Amino acid sequence: MTDLALVPDGGMPWLDASGPNSDLVLSTRIRLARNLAGRPFWGRNSPEDREAIVTTIGAAAQDMPALADATMYRLDAVSIATRRWLNERQLVSRELAGLDAAGRVRSGAVLLLGRSASAMINEEDHVRLQGLRSGFALESAYGVTDRTDRELGARVSFAFHPEFGYLTACPTNVGTGLRASVLIHLPALVLTKEITKVLQGLAQVGLTYRGLFGEGSEALGNLFQLSNQTTLGKSEAELLDHLGRMVHQVMAYEERARTALRRDASAALEDKAWRAWAVLKHARTLSFEETVDLLSGVRLGVGLRILPDVPLYSLNRVLVLAQTAHVAEAAGLSLDADAIPEHRAAFVRRMFEEVGHQ
Amino acid sequence: MTDLALVPDGGMPWLDASGPNSDLVLSTRIRLARNLAGRPFWGRNSPEDREAIVTTIGAAAQDMPALADATMYRLDAVSIATRRWLNERQLVSRELAGLDAAGRVRSGAVLLLGRSASAMINEEDHVRLQGLRSGFALESAYGVTDRTDRELGARVSFAFHPEFGYLTACPTNVGTGLRASVLIHLPALVLTKEITKVLQGLAQVGLTYRGLFGEGSEALGNLFQLSNQTTLGKSEAELLDHLGRMVHQVMAYEERARTALRRDASAALEDKAWRAWAVLKHARTLSFEETVDLLSGVRLGVGLRILPDVPLYSLNRVLVLAQTAHVAEAAGLSLDADAIPEHRAAFVRRMFEEVGHQ
Repeated sequence: MTDLALVPDGGMPWLDASGPNSDLVLSTRIRLARNLAGRPFWGRNSPEDREAIVTTIGAAAQDMPALADATMYRLDAVSIATRRWLNERQLVSRELAGLDAAGRVRSGAVLLLGRSASAMINEEDHVRLQGLRSGFALESAYGVTDRTDRELGARVSFAFHPEFGYLTACPTNVGTGLRASVLIHLPALVLTKEITKVLQGLAQVGLTYRGLFGEGSEALGNLFQLSNQTTLGKSEAELLDHLGRMVHQVMAYEERARTALRRDASAALEDKAWRAWAVLKHARTLSFEETVDLLSGVRLGVGLRILPDVPLYSLNRVLVLAQTAHVAEAAGLSLDADAIPEHRAAFVRRMFEEVGHQ
Repeated sequence: MTDLALVPDGGMPWLDASGPNSDLVLSTRIRLARNLAGRPFWGRNSPEDREAIVTTIGAAAQDMPALADATMYRLDAVSIATRRWLNERQLVSRELAGLDAAGRVRSGAVLLLGRSASAMINEEDHVRLQGLRSGFALESAYGVTDRTDRELGARVSFAFHPEFGYLTACPTNVGTGLRASVLIHLPALVLTKEITKVLQGLAQVGLTYRGLFGEGSEALGNLFQLSNQTTLGKSEAELLDHLGRMVHQVMAYEERARTALRRDASAALEDKAWRAWAVLKHARTLSFEETVDLLSGVRLGVGLRILPDVPLYSLNRVLVLAQTAHVAEAAGLSLDADAIPEHRAAFVRRMFEEVGHQ
């Protein structure tokens, strides 16, 4: 894993809770899907095609200010532990990391990782540019991604249709190729069971949601990734503006639900928060699922000043560092070691000690 | 409740963990069932009969060294809160306290409560003499009860049959009228699932078990009351000797199961103990059932030196003081108040603070 020690900020500045509304929104992610003109799309392209794409994008990136500090990781040449590690940091998709049901990493799968922007090469599209920001920061995340896109577009030729816009492997991404998503913590809406109505409302206005771990994952720890569903027929500004307004609305709902819980179920709320705190601080074995569930209770309890203060950055880091590949690496264990839940619990206890709560 | 403030030692010296094997055995109880000659048994006696029994036993008790310090509580003249309170201290049966399904206390229901011995008048038998001792102490518990029995027998005439022995309302008590029971904590046998076999074995040798709260109650908190099933055809010494040997055997099984758990499931055991400790220390609402269940985990953890030391006396007291009538009285609430689980949790937290674990 030595190569990854060089990842700028461990690839986690987006978790540092420095951004706007960090109490509710952990991070904002912008993704732009792009394909090179004249090259077959994924599904029809060959290993040679994919290698040529790596060469083209890699050469362009060397010359791009936005990716000047980027390092290239060939996912097709690293262990599954390293691929899981990168996926756990939300730096590469499960698909690119070869962690899907098939479980094989494709040739030409590459991550270009810079401090503020990154690019996945040979994912579903030839290149997917990504910008991740702490907190609720659509403009700044889009700003850096747009800059990367413009710099890359000045050096290579994208598949583009004058009427439809950018062409992509999957029709749902045609147009802007933009996916904007916001990772938001909605425990009160879950506790009051209003979440179903809220999510249904979002679907009606063209937004969708996924869990922390992407499509099909449950809303573990009451964390929801809210994002735009389609990209065709709308401008980037319209998509971002629409998502932004809806997220503001959801935050207001969550705050209202918190106030209601505080008023009507204060004992139950305090109990939930303190139990989560107590178990995280003292358990000797923890599954990742339970850890994330308990973190949600602590996060809510800290937010409502029920619990002693814990920096959000510390809580956010656990979301990444308590995942299996991270625990295994820190403890020098294999990914399927029986002792991982014990080491996870020990790591979480140390976190509480480090922030001064023993 | 002012009258009960005068109960010697709050009626709880049997919980002080001063007796032998107090880590496993909380208390030993001896009960002798006696009936007055020439008076109808319970089920066929009238309020006047029962009043006459109270008068006869009460007068005799005044003159008995064994009950010299005893106070008389007329259960038929006190509130349900007081009756539950006495039952929670294990000083009166549910039946005498009128807490059965019928929920009515019978006329003439009386408790004579002294520091070392007590008597329930007009329970199933005219009088049931009781001795309770801390730890595994069959001889000393029997000693004090036997003394009370001899003193009372010298002053009143018991229903006695030269062939069968003492006559009782229920045939299962005929003979010695003796029930000896030991309240024992068997968490490791429950965890290893060996408990079923152990209890079946006890049944085969004429012993029976109940939960903490008597017949029909589940083994809440892994606490079992082991006792002799019948009393006919055996001497007191034989019954006590037999129970004593069997309890020694069960303690050995429990210790063996603890050793096996420590060896084979140490992480799971530590996790269970620490979680129980954490939740008891931090929860903001607790049901009594959960409290007893968690206490079992803490008791085991302290016994195995997994957890910081907590005096057994403190843990034992929670078994009584966290029950509903005690919590309600301490908080000035009615028995059915919604806030009782919150006050129970606050009481348990204070217990941890008092023993220095904040």
